[in-house]
Amino acid sequence: MIREQMLAAEKVKALDWREGGLYLLDQRLLPQQEIWQRYETSTDVAQAIAQMRVRGAPAIGIAAAFAVVLAAQQHFVNGVNDWQAALEADFAELAASRPTAVNLFWALQKMRDCLDVAAQHAEPLAVLEQQALDILNADREANLSMAQLGLEVINRANAGPQHVMTHCNTGALATGGFGTALGVVRAAHAAGLLTCVHVNETRPWLQGSRLTAWELIGEQIPSLLNVDSAAAHLLQQGEITWVIVGADRITANGDVANKIGTYQLAVLARHHQVKFMVVAPSSTIDMQLSSGVQIPIEQREGEEILAIAGQRVAAQIDAYNPVFDVTPAELIDVIVTERGVVEQPNLENMQALMR
Amino acid sequence: MIREQMLAAEKVKALDWREGGLYLLDQRLLPQQEIWQRYETSTDVAQAIAQMRVRGAPAIGIAAAFAVVLAAQQHFVNGVNDWQAALEADFAELAASRPTAVNLFWALQKMRDCLDVAAQHAEPLAVLEQQALDILNADREANLSMAQLGLEVINRANAGPQHVMTHCNTGALATGGFGTALGVVRAAHAAGLLTCVHVNETRPWLQGSRLTAWELIGEQIPSLLNVDSAAAHLLQQGEITWVIVGADRITANGDVANKIGTYQLAVLARHHQVKFMVVAPSSTIDMQLSSGVQIPIEQREGEEILAIAGQRVAAQIDAYNPVFDVTPAELIDVIVTERGVVEQPNLENMQALMR
Repeated sequence: MIREQMLAAEKVKALDWREGGLYLLDQRLLPQQEIWQRYETSTDVAQAIAQMRVRGAPAIGIAAAFAVVLAAQQHFVNGVNDWQAALEADFAELAASRPTAVNLFWALQKMRDCLDVAAQHAEPLAVLEQQALDILNADREANLSMAQLGLEVINRANAGPQHVMTHCNTGALATGGFGTALGVVRAAHAAGLLTCVHVNETRPWLQGSRLTAWELIGEQIPSLLNVDSAAAHLLQQGEITWVIVGADRITANGDVANKIGTYQLAVLARHHQVKFMVVAPSSTIDMQLSSGVQIPIEQREGEEILAIAGQRVAAQIDAYNPVFDVTPAELIDVIVTERGVVEQPNLENMQALMR
Repeated sequence: MIREQMLAAEKVKALDWREGGLYLLDQRLLPQQEIWQRYETSTDVAQAIAQMRVRGAPAIGIAAAFAVVLAAQQHFVNGVNDWQAALEADFAELAASRPTAVNLFWALQKMRDCLDVAAQHAEPLAVLEQQALDILNADREANLSMAQLGLEVINRANAGPQHVMTHCNTGALATGGFGTALGVVRAAHAAGLLTCVHVNETRPWLQGSRLTAWELIGEQIPSLLNVDSAAAHLLQQGEITWVIVGADRITANGDVANKIGTYQLAVLARHHQVKFMVVAPSSTIDMQLSSGVQIPIEQREGEEILAIAGQRVAAQIDAYNPVFDVTPAELIDVIVTERGVVEQPNLENMQALMR
């Protein structure tokens, strides 16, 4: 029922695979301009990821998967002898595009895993293309499942009207469709439970005010924007029922790397006894890392803080621009994945989930 | 010694009184443009306060005091019969310019208190002018005293190298000179104790990246800018030794209204066992209000969030823009005023300070 409502309401996509090319909606230009660009080389996709034309952990993984198809396509056209060996440079370039979200490495591994099968196949490209499409479709299905599971968690805690606070963009634009945290918000709206989504603007890149707001307004989901540092004031007023965010990497003990500002929200939510939910597909979980301190935190150019929309705003100061932070598992009430729900995450129940 | 160093290093002023006119540095245009404007009417000054051409609790109070002089001047030039009665409209207009900071109301009361003496005097205008100058000079002296007292507090806690985090602008631009919280930072720098000031950019108005950064860079005080929501990440790294902020109103129990985002910092500082200092002149203390819930919190136009530097950035969403928040006294380790230092503020020790 919720699934059908979400499918019927779907309006936004971050990417599309058509006629042997990857189309990306340029998220740097939203909401002012909706510009789709066709990509035909892996290098161009890697650049688009690094430049955040496409962003959001699951969407990055999906884009990288199709980039591998594009790379193979190119090697075939160029008549490269050992196309599998030639792909190594493409894998390396794609892996270097963003360091923090693990879905990128997960998707590249998925593509790598089917290379041998592809090589033995009459149409290797068709095998690779199918694998990338499978990654995309699995992500969409995962999001629909998580939306349902997240909604059940909300209903179990308190089936009344919900004021949800969210951070960054975890919607259709960040995924293969519907979103992770924003998928749960969509489900709550479809279920008639949602009074308001409070959207943190999410400096420096303004994913909240540019992207999440655009998705929510497009579907007439009741929403209100605030600056990131007003979150505490809103929580203090006592109206917020849930803080719901996505994740870029979850370690074996349940620590969560996500957009800068997430850790602050988790501390604040706990201080105000508001529940904190993380929604992410299992491709976000990295059981190889025992805790969040091991996650590489991407530092981006200070320019992202010093200038806004190409216009210099700050004085001639240096800027420190870590774009992710790590929330320790003990501040997280529940992690929702398509495999199931983990309450009070720790090594034991994360292992149980991933078994 | 610190006092002399601070006087010698002084570079920035927010306002100036010359030749019967009030000059304000337009803080909306900093740091790109340094434009001083001369004001000759109280109405224009009230507008400048409302539009945040001049901002910062103490600077607003000082500007309003000179606005009363301008108003009286105008009534004299116009040959108004009962100039004291005529001033009532000016007082009302100035009082309506910003609701949260109490220094505005305090300064207007100071001006009102000398009206009768002025009326009996051969040169009433000279009396009013002297009162406004006294308010300005007392604020400068208060800031120099607080800088010294705050430095002593820091030294008592840990005389080693300091990494201070600050929010908004509490410097020369916010006061009659030197600043409140930033005055303590200047003193720590003059004393050779300061390793770095971490400046929160302070959305939506960017007082941190536009104004505080400009002041610090101008005096070559080591500093680094971050987005507001990176504060928790910085505190988590364990490098910050003090969070030091100003105040717009302090109630009888020690609750503090200050720039939106201050409350979040206080919760985060406590969570990370980092000390939290509030620096404000006693004109900021409102013993008439028993607690912070009674402080009117100014809500400004959503446009301040939706557009930056005149350029639309956000989607067509509504924005909630409270520009102050209230930090409960129990999260504050120390309040520094020119009258003395209050540790672990509460009604009893606030009353003792104000007696």
